[in-house]
Amino acid sequence: MPLPTPLTGVVPPLCTPLTPRGDIDIRSLRAVAERLIGAGVSGLFVLGSSGEAAYLSDAQRRTALGTVVETAGGRVPVLAGAIDMTTARVADHAHAAAELGADGIVAAAPFFTRTHPAEIADHFRRIRGGTDLPLFGYDIPRSVHTKLPAATVLELAADSTLAGLKDSSGDDGALRRLLVELRRRGLEDTFSVLTGSELAVDGALLAGAHGVVPGLGNVDPAGYVRLHMYARAGRWAEAAAEQDRLAALFAITEVGDPAAMGGSSSALGAFKAALHLLGVIDCPATAPPQVPLGDAAVKAVGRLLEDGGLL
Amino acid sequence: MPLPTPLTGVVPPLCTPLTPRGDIDIRSLRAVAERLIGAGVSGLFVLGSSGEAAYLSDAQRRTALGTVVETAGGRVPVLAGAIDMTTARVADHAHAAAELGADGIVAAAPFFTRTHPAEIADHFRRIRGGTDLPLFGYDIPRSVHTKLPAATVLELAADSTLAGLKDSSGDDGALRRLLVELRRRGLEDTFSVLTGSELAVDGALLAGAHGVVPGLGNVDPAGYVRLHMYARAGRWAEAAAEQDRLAALFAITEVGDPAAMGGSSSALGAFKAALHLLGVIDCPATAPPQVPLGDAAVKAVGRLLEDGGLL
Amino acid sequence: MPLPTPLTGVVPPLCTPLTPRGDIDIRSLRAVAERLIGAGVSGLFVLGSSGEAAYLSDAQRRTALGTVVETAGGRVPVLAGAIDMTTARVADHAHAAAELGADGIVAAAPFFTRTHPAEIADHFRRIRGGTDLPLFGYDIPRSVHTKLPAATVLELAADSTLAGLKDSSGDDGALRRLLVELRRRGLEDTFSVLTGSELAVDGALLAGAHGVVPGLGNVDPAGYVRLHMYARAGRWAEAAAEQDRLAALFAITEVGDPAAMGGSSSALGAFKAALHLLGVIDCPATAPPQVPLGDAAVKAVGRLLEDGGLL
Amino acid sequence: MPLPTPLTGVVPPLCTPLTPRGDIDIRSLRAVAERLIGAGVSGLFVLGSSGEAAYLSDAQRRTALGTVVETAGGRVPVLAGAIDMTTARVADHAHAAAELGADGIVAAAPFFTRTHPAEIADHFRRIRGGTDLPLFGYDIPRSVHTKLPAATVLELAADSTLAGLKDSSGDDGALRRLLVELRRRGLEDTFSVLTGSELAVDGALLAGAHGVVPGLGNVDPAGYVRLHMYARAGRWAEAAAEQDRLAALFAITEVGDPAAMGGSSSALGAFKAALHLLGVIDCPATAPPQVPLGDAAVKAVGRLLEDGGLL
Repeated sequence: MPLPTPLTGVVPPLCTPLTPRGDIDIRSLRAVAERLIGAGVSGLFVLGSSGEAAYLSDAQRRTALGTVVETAGGRVPVLAGAIDMTTARVADHAHAAAELGADGIVAAAPFFTRTHPAEIADHFRRIRGGTDLPLFGYDIPRSVHTKLPAATVLELAADSTLAGLKDSSGDDGALRRLLVELRRRGLEDTFSVLTGSELAVDGALLAGAHGVVPGLGNVDPAGYVRLHMYARAGRWAEAAAEQDRLAALFAITEVGDPAAMGGSSSALGAFKAALHLLGVIDCPATAPPQVPLGDAAVKAVGRLLEDGGLL
Repeated sequence: MPLPTPLTGVVPPLCTPLTPRGDIDIRSLRAVAERLIGAGVSGLFVLGSSGEAAYLSDAQRRTALGTVVETAGGRVPVLAGAIDMTTARVADHAHAAAELGADGIVAAAPFFTRTHPAEIADHFRRIRGGTDLPLFGYDIPRSVHTKLPAATVLELAADSTLAGLKDSSGDDGALRRLLVELRRRGLEDTFSVLTGSELAVDGALLAGAHGVVPGLGNVDPAGYVRLHMYARAGRWAEAAAEQDRLAALFAITEVGDPAAMGGSSSALGAFKAALHLLGVIDCPATAPPQVPLGDAAVKAVGRLLEDGGLL
Repeated sequence: MPLPTPLTGVVPPLCTPLTPRGDIDIRSLRAVAERLIGAGVSGLFVLGSSGEAAYLSDAQRRTALGTVVETAGGRVPVLAGAIDMTTARVADHAHAAAELGADGIVAAAPFFTRTHPAEIADHFRRIRGGTDLPLFGYDIPRSVHTKLPAATVLELAADSTLAGLKDSSGDDGALRRLLVELRRRGLEDTFSVLTGSELAVDGALLAGAHGVVPGLGNVDPAGYVRLHMYARAGRWAEAAAEQDRLAALFAITEVGDPAAMGGSSSALGAFKAALHLLGVIDCPATAPPQVPLGDAAVKAVGRLLEDGGLL
Repeated sequence: MPLPTPLTGVVPPLCTPLTPRGDIDIRSLRAVAERLIGAGVSGLFVLGSSGEAAYLSDAQRRTALGTVVETAGGRVPVLAGAIDMTTARVADHAHAAAELGADGIVAAAPFFTRTHPAEIADHFRRIRGGTDLPLFGYDIPRSVHTKLPAATVLELAADSTLAGLKDSSGDDGALRRLLVELRRRGLEDTFSVLTGSELAVDGALLAGAHGVVPGLGNVDPAGYVRLHMYARAGRWAEAAAEQDRLAALFAITEVGDPAAMGGSSSALGAFKAALHLLGVIDCPATAPPQVPLGDAAVKAVGRLLEDGGLL
């Protein structure tokens, strides 16, 4: 299905459930996707960092994406992350995703290497040149250690290399300036800006962002859909209250012991523990070498789900 | 005068005008302060990073603070930055500020050194112990290369070491979680949260921040006062439109050539160029070793002031 | 062939020549390998960062590795980089390398993700568990944004997970402490330490490192072989003079314009330009999206080769 | 006394002993200085980061410097750190140091601010212009978050702004290239290069560095003097063995619990604990807000002193 222009609303980055043996748990992944669609999301983003794309083999990535495309069945569009170090490798993932029926591609700047903005622009142009699908830039400096420069994004928006941006930079000031500049150039209806700042969504929507890609949306999609709806209706106090509730729930990402596990493991482990406690997925395992959450941490997730009215 | 609890509204971090010889330009500094008070700000923050505190000698700092305290004359409270590397040096600045009549102190975590959160907490407790004035934490990782941990801020809020926070971290997600947690602990009326994210003030106020410390407020204080007023009145669309206009104006901070001057020089030079073009200050010079803005850059500032309706 | 224990001497990280169309240039790659073997190197490291591994597709990686294994023909051992984000993906590359006849694997800590030292240790143990080949840790914080903790390296050396370390961290103080500690634990003859600090090789060998993996060794392998030989013979003044000459030659990596191209492109482009000028490879192209060196930069490479006595 | 040109040998950065009340312990500081001079050092560096300059008030700095100048009494030259954020503040410290009889000034790039290389060069030129004393650049990116660019150092060496460099960057590859380039320009006898890489001194001297500024030299000055002597005599194996012993001793800097104290506190606490155990200083206290070493850590320091043959 063609992507709406612009793409608005809630587009959660799906967790990828695994079996205890480490295979993709197809039944559980379908359940995650169905639950999100049922909650009213506008699209599904598969193989993002919340989807543990960095941990999955190429074969596992194909299984995950194929499963979600099939489950979505054209009800909502499916964006596929093409996470790899540089251009040719990303293009290979984009090609595979197109064959599996994805509706759009999400790609980050090169990483592992030291790259110039001119090289980043060329990177996106080459990826776009190799696929018929709309391409979203994935601004995630926490992972790739480069922030997409605003000038590069504007240049790639103007020449239609990029159809949109998934902004996980956390730099909401830069996002505001980008939104203002896109409007000044008349690009606000053709270039979709999705914020990944999942704790400041009300502010981002007030600033003109089109939608949100919240990792926490795996756990509470209905909350984010309500938040988006309130914002679209101009009911800002209710939007803020919903965001406050979700911000409190986000504490689940910090129940892991930072002295014993990485930040990625703690957040992804919490999303999966919550989905397991909610009965959506069969097994809360994350991919190696991530340290699993301990029992006390899982109990803390449970309490926070209760506090948030989800359990 | 005692600081209001909580401190709300617009509290600009004053630029420190200099003469061509590099002395504090007392007349111009008074004019800056008068213009801000006339625009309806809630307080004045002297000797912050926008005030070039890092560049001023101790004697110059005293002159600047004394001038502003005298000009304010009790009409609005004056916060004084106490910017130095570690505890004893900061405490000396805090002591000097108290003698000069400041109404509150703003201090950052230690820098130059490698410091543990427990040491940061002790740092603030010792500074607080050495002064009768309310103490604000200054979260400015761009300068001190440490983000104040939320747990530390909450601990120092709970035991009244800190009266508030000036959050220039740009991490609006962390700010949201802090605000939610302060409310959960019943501290929202006693601990003042001022955002330094001057391009996302509408969102921060929607999230519950008490006020804003905008460097750009030197140039357009009336804009920030309107933005704050709209937000307090729940007129969010108008708040967002005002913020959009200010975000466009913020482009003045990037007219400097990044190949020829530092980020600090470019932003501070632009604020001063604008104040000079607006007829507020006599000389746009910044302190050495900052490279001054070139003629083309100053013209670009002028055009942006015109676009923003200020000139 | 089994790797020598310990592995000593010069083990250059081979450049991967490309055709103008971007395919692996098999003839030129063979020529690079033959020239290195002829110069007396102790091993060949394929698919490292100097080999543009981050830019090559899986198929290209297989072609490059297979070509070098065949060319080496058992005369010197071949180490294969297994560069990917996390454990399962790295293990897949290691498996492919084993099938192609590599004699050892070189793997870095996870990247793109935020990983704990305990997870890094588990990562290496799992990779080691999936292959019969000796495994070298690749400490390259510039690319993966984590430094391998000394405690982790020592633990993995003691339990034979790692057969050695390629230290490209540039932290020669940490390297010294590691070497001292390996000796204290009696591991100095079983755990091979190869420095990637190609400008301080004399010091590293004096400190007890077993060998060196110099990117510049692509250009001047005989120089590094001489340097190693002088060091082994205790002829330190001559070792230092050789290192000085190589350090001057290293200026080729900075002829690229940093305002127009990334650090990776500049260094890799210079190595390839030099190999092209020396008549070793047919085409100096680097993989997209790297900006190629301009004519003036290539001329500067030529002059530096002349200054270094190579042209 | 005039500084030797070039300045060679061991120039330890003196610890600043404190009384239990936090005042400068003048008797103990004299004892530190006497012990260093007795061990054969070439100069004394007061108010560096090992001297806790960042923690001392201006008055304390004056006391410390005055005490060491008086104790030295012209037997060895005294370098004074002028550690502050930007130019005017550094110049004030340099002026005070000159009045107190220092023989040279050591200053870093600006910090807290975001500074361009052209501004860094201007910074050093202005400091130099304000004093008659030789000026050393202090390259300490760990503290100031900027590495002094090689081009800037070479420019400031060529025009005699800088008399030398104290390189605490830990980037020994960059140091090698600088040394090679200084020789190429005929500056090797007029510009003094002192390494702060205290665990790779043998390599640095082999590369042509003139001397070393070792924090650990507070504890074992005789070891560093021997290391330097061996190197000057071309007895490299003995130099390396001495460096190995010192590298093992350096483990004292890691006895502190990283979960409970900062890296600065752990290292400085260990140096002072060692000096206390050795009977040189009366009290091992470090300045607030540094967490003091616990009893177990102090015992570990003692054992390492025994292992190193010092106790």
